[in-house]
Amino acid sequence: MNDTPAGLDYEALMQVVRRRRSVRAFEKGRHVGREVLEKIVDCGRWAPSGANSQPWDFIVVDDPAMKEQVFEVFMRQSQRLIDHARGFPAVKKSYMANTVAIIVVVGDPRWKACFPQGTSPEFVEEYAANNEKIHLVSLGAAIQNLQLGVTAMGLTSAWLSGGGEATTNRELSELLGYPPFMEAVGTIPIGYPQKDVSFRYRRPIKQVTHWNRYEPEKFRTQAQIDYYIDRLRPFAMYRGSERMEEWEDVDEKLGPWKDAFTTAAPNPGGKLDT
Amino acid sequence: MNDTPAGLDYEALMQVVRRRRSVRAFEKGRHVGREVLEKIVDCGRWAPSGANSQPWDFIVVDDPAMKEQVFEVFMRQSQRLIDHARGFPAVKKSYMANTVAIIVVVGDPRWKACFPQGTSPEFVEEYAANNEKIHLVSLGAAIQNLQLGVTAMGLTSAWLSGGGEATTNRELSELLGYPPFMEAVGTIPIGYPQKDVSFRYRRPIKQVTHWNRYEPEKFRTQAQIDYYIDRLRPFAMYRGSERMEEWEDVDEKLGPWKDAFTTAAPNPGGKLDT
Repeated sequence: MNDTPAGLDYEALMQVVRRRRSVRAFEKGRHVGREVLEKIVDCGRWAPSGANSQPWDFIVVDDPAMKEQVFEVFMRQSQRLIDHARGFPAVKKSYMANTVAIIVVVGDPRWKACFPQGTSPEFVEEYAANNEKIHLVSLGAAIQNLQLGVTAMGLTSAWLSGGGEATTNRELSELLGYPPFMEAVGTIPIGYPQKDVSFRYRRPIKQVTHWNRYEPEKFRTQAQIDYYIDRLRPFAMYRGSERMEEWEDVDEKLGPWKDAFTTAAPNPGGKLDT
Repeated sequence: MNDTPAGLDYEALMQVVRRRRSVRAFEKGRHVGREVLEKIVDCGRWAPSGANSQPWDFIVVDDPAMKEQVFEVFMRQSQRLIDHARGFPAVKKSYMANTVAIIVVVGDPRWKACFPQGTSPEFVEEYAANNEKIHLVSLGAAIQNLQLGVTAMGLTSAWLSGGGEATTNRELSELLGYPPFMEAVGTIPIGYPQKDVSFRYRRPIKQVTHWNRYEPEKFRTQAQIDYYIDRLRPFAMYRGSERMEEWEDVDEKLGPWKDAFTTAAPNPGGKLDT
């Protein structure tokens, strides 16, 4: 393994990958030049996509009045969450006010026609369903590349997925002028972090890795998912530690589920829900 | 812009981002240790996900007999493409034979329950549709991180999306033992590149970048999409140049569409299809 081509550096990559974090407090009064924003978009542009369709456009909002209007769309979106998706631990989107720019990643679903289309009646539905998946994972790859570019430039970002809702998308489409059949799958506010970023909970690597076969003792039961949603979600989303073991109140918060979230085997008996 | 925190390096990141390529010819007779494969999985594990749900598992197949069986699933998948998705420029999947490992990224759709759920009847459908998008773009982010990790280790990979089809997923689920409701959204064969990787067509950066508003002269018309599918797709997918201008037969292949694929303004009149 000492024949890595010159210029490739795993540690440099991981430095960026680990520091990429959704941050919600930006420094006031900063700005960046468009050459920086173009470098960030260039990262997104190099992402892979099904049939090399590149079904994305990057709308870079750096004009203060336009940023304000995008911000207002997301304030309304937050309020809809509070009113119509009760129970979700939404955060105020007021931090968008100190962004240096907002990049709206717009996906164009017409390009799904590039992916395999069923030509036998019994396969039409199966390929169509997979077209949708290929389209969205391609967009996810582009957004991830974009966010890594943001991090590598010493900036920070969040990933607002609310643009995927029909109401928010309609408002963004009217504001930004893209055709309404396109979808703002990710909206990325960018700014200077107010303080050094912390990490967020990650499942232990031995829990997410299965060797040669799916290891059923690593299965997360429906009861574990329910516990996460009911009791852990806001802490797993917003607390600054990679490991839940580092939480001061770990025993109280995790209760009987401690091993499930912190060890390699959340499901020691290996029984799968079906 | 000279206050980038220590250790972050945009050029190092872009080196990896640009070299990440789907490669279909691996060197024979090579292997890697599990410590390398774990480093690759660790990149995937650090990806962001909606509500930090981390709805993924990584099944790392390095056992020769199991690799062979995964390979056979994808040979059948290729044959189905030929028989039931006629017109798609599929490639033989025989290259999977020289992989050092295959990582199957399995998504668990139960975790969509973590995302905002409509609690008012008129919003139930809208939030449910967005749940699906958040789930898939999160998986796309993890797969992209994983592939960047592969590249940074001097290896190379492809991204097989066929596991998202119901038939292929059923076969993989039976072979690998994951519950059938989970989905193999990406299958990543990994190996040593036989030769140095080349690039693939990327839309010009000024074509994908819109400042403050969607710029309608950058719109790709339906006729352009049709031309891509009918005439350009195999070349845009498999030829080794970032720019179509570098193709020897660029005028013949692109005809009246040359500007549309090579300049900042594919749609100079600015008229949008609706």
